[in-house]
Amino acid sequence: MQKPSLPKGTRDFGPEQMRKRLFIFDTIRQTFQRFGFQPLETPSMENLSTLTGKYGDEGDQLLFKILNSGDFAAGLTETDLQTGSKKLTPKIAEKGLRYDLTVPFARYVVMNRNALTMPFKRYQMQPVWRADRPQKGRYREFYQCDADVVGTDSLICEAEIVLMIHEVFRNLGIQDFTLKLNNRKILAGIAEVISAPGQEGLLSVAIDKLDKIGKEKVLDELRERGFSETAVANLDPIFTFSNQAPAQVLDQLETWLSTSETAQQGIAELKETLQLVGQYGLSDSQIELDPTLARGLSYYTGAIFEVKANGVSIGSVSGGGRYDNLTGAFGMPGLSGVGISFGVDRIYDVMDELNLFPAGAGQGTQVLIVPFDAEARTVALPLLSKLRTANIASEVYPDLAKVKKMLDFANAKAIPYVVLIGSEEVQTGMLSLKNMITGEQKRATAEEILQLVK
Amino acid sequence: MQKPSLPKGTRDFGPEQMRKRLFIFDTIRQTFQRFGFQPLETPSMENLSTLTGKYGDEGDQLLFKILNSGDFAAGLTETDLQTGSKKLTPKIAEKGLRYDLTVPFARYVVMNRNALTMPFKRYQMQPVWRADRPQKGRYREFYQCDADVVGTDSLICEAEIVLMIHEVFRNLGIQDFTLKLNNRKILAGIAEVISAPGQEGLLSVAIDKLDKIGKEKVLDELRERGFSETAVANLDPIFTFSNQAPAQVLDQLETWLSTSETAQQGIAELKETLQLVGQYGLSDSQIELDPTLARGLSYYTGAIFEVKANGVSIGSVSGGGRYDNLTGAFGMPGLSGVGISFGVDRIYDVMDELNLFPAGAGQGTQVLIVPFDAEARTVALPLLSKLRTANIASEVYPDLAKVKKMLDFANAKAIPYVVLIGSEEVQTGMLSLKNMITGEQKRATAEEILQLVK
Repeated sequence: MQKPSLPKGTRDFGPEQMRKRLFIFDTIRQTFQRFGFQPLETPSMENLSTLTGKYGDEGDQLLFKILNSGDFAAGLTETDLQTGSKKLTPKIAEKGLRYDLTVPFARYVVMNRNALTMPFKRYQMQPVWRADRPQKGRYREFYQCDADVVGTDSLICEAEIVLMIHEVFRNLGIQDFTLKLNNRKILAGIAEVISAPGQEGLLSVAIDKLDKIGKEKVLDELRERGFSETAVANLDPIFTFSNQAPAQVLDQLETWLSTSETAQQGIAELKETLQLVGQYGLSDSQIELDPTLARGLSYYTGAIFEVKANGVSIGSVSGGGRYDNLTGAFGMPGLSGVGISFGVDRIYDVMDELNLFPAGAGQGTQVLIVPFDAEARTVALPLLSKLRTANIASEVYPDLAKVKKMLDFANAKAIPYVVLIGSEEVQTGMLSLKNMITGEQKRATAEEILQLVK
Repeated sequence: MQKPSLPKGTRDFGPEQMRKRLFIFDTIRQTFQRFGFQPLETPSMENLSTLTGKYGDEGDQLLFKILNSGDFAAGLTETDLQTGSKKLTPKIAEKGLRYDLTVPFARYVVMNRNALTMPFKRYQMQPVWRADRPQKGRYREFYQCDADVVGTDSLICEAEIVLMIHEVFRNLGIQDFTLKLNNRKILAGIAEVISAPGQEGLLSVAIDKLDKIGKEKVLDELRERGFSETAVANLDPIFTFSNQAPAQVLDQLETWLSTSETAQQGIAELKETLQLVGQYGLSDSQIELDPTLARGLSYYTGAIFEVKANGVSIGSVSGGGRYDNLTGAFGMPGLSGVGISFGVDRIYDVMDELNLFPAGAGQGTQVLIVPFDAEARTVALPLLSKLRTANIASEVYPDLAKVKKMLDFANAKAIPYVVLIGSEEVQTGMLSLKNMITGEQKRATAEEILQLVK
């Protein structure tokens, strides 16, 4: 008999973890809904033709492919084998598992273009799968929680994302976070101004490592990648923006990047976004403008968002941005949108490490009823029904067992209240309520118990 | 540019469908939790060694297998190809998608046997995948919502399942349903008494078709399967139980099956279950005792449950039973448990067909704010924040557009209230609130609007 095991990079979520995860999911879902985002779910499997070519070569490698059903090998020849795994794959697998929520969303929008009312705001909270090498904090199955609005380029959408981020993290109890904000056009403007126009991609990749390798090594990498000494020297102001208020950063950028029309447009967008955020009444925003923020860049064309929890060395817990061509790959060009993604697994780790879960979040059963014999059940079961009708999660110990065993059960499950019912209790109607945290025990009628544990 | 499409047998769930589905999920989840069941989630992928051999040959065929990552074909030879798909599969795929929630649950229990407190009550609401031929009402990806308690054989658990079924369907608004109840031991007893001992499996398969093919053809099938004429004749009483109260059915079974000890035990179990249900205070239960109910039988050893919604020709919407050997296949024999599964997709179809979704269940955004110009936003955005703080799902039309277009947007999204804000409204502070259902429009302050739409 083999011992059962889990596939590499996957996890079970037991009761306590699940309750805490549900607290996070519920908080995010409620915020999304309050902001008028509509729920969407797409299938776990997509045709490989939908998925491949959307995430770069590396992404294609990381797709989980599903073996065709039935006699998939029927038409295969030795030649097929010799072509190698990569070419063999499309012959035996036509479906793959969702790699993110963005491409399925784009596919959905294109397939339903005639039925959807634009602007379309949707949220989606589902697992995604990546055949990455598992390591601490990186799993092969993990949840994404995305909210996107497409069909409008109004900066109100950017402002609302800033608001949602604040609301989600505050409702979760993560007070101390930093929301970094940038705009692709500023990165493009910087590349222009340092005389490396169009090179914002390479620039970003290098600057992204600033925290890890320091300024000098970033500059070395730029030189290696073909940036001229002039360009490298011109880049100096970029290292001076940290720890400044957004308005100050914008002022300095305006001066530094005065010759780039693109940059000025990006600056104007950020200014308007901040102004709108103010109009919503968010007075104590935790926004930091960071001209080095890039987040992969590839499809962002405007705003770029990233959130980090302070005091924990975990990467970003949320990120997103504006894109101008979500559905282009499916033959529907020019659809602009902006979105944000919350990483539940990392948010969980942050809250766990900082002890931020509210006491109720992990709470399961509230009351355990312990009948000493079959007769006691005639009192136990009606009380149980009443507790549940009052929306109190409760259960009865189902077997007739020693009292100690039943109390141990309550302790092991961290059930705060136990109601003990023996023959005396049946006769008098006065039951015993034990508070498992304080150890205190008192006599009370069923009605009183209902009030006490509420 | 290829048109994007969905894999066969899979579906997108758009906003309205999703909101209704979430209503079902929430209702089931809340009931499970009130009854003290704890949430569990297991990975979508399991090792094929965990899954295969658990669902019979047909089940193994219906498992979705995941192609190994990387150079999966590296070690393959022409001989491997010639062995055919079935033997080739384990060489190129070591993982599969979850086929149900029971086997992953069993695997979880065995892997965590030392940490779990018994009896262990868990619920699990996740999608499962089957490579079935898609047809109306049968999909390749669908949700199961299971609640099981293991580690006790107390009939309190059976009674609680009866209660949960009533609570779930009543909370959903499905008042008219039938809960069929049987016990494997009664089926075994019937087989004994008609002198076909041990043949309850074959008996059940045939009897299961009663509704479809009628009594005579059921008897023909039994003859074909080797049941003697005596056995067939002895079976006659089984066709006489419909439309009788549970107590009557039990009385008649007691007489008919008086020679079978196993049957008497099954009858006693059902009696005690009904008695316990009564002690909980469920006076108007919708239980029908049906000695022909089998539900596949294979792993049920005691109670068998099945729920059908009346007035709709959809199969069962819920089913379950007691099993004595959940974890035997993983080397942990003798663990008894009982469980129930709710089929969300069918429940959705029932509620949709009978128009049972409450008005609020499909409701998305409650209020749309329509600012006529940029200045109007200075009034719109603070109001929006106030509405959301009051937990009213609201949004602002993000672009400056014609009023008609914005009202059309509200109608298309079935948003019941629109707040119109032009320059006059900005000056006077009196906004216009339009009820999109009645068409009525009135003037009100922001504060009044907040009260009106609450």
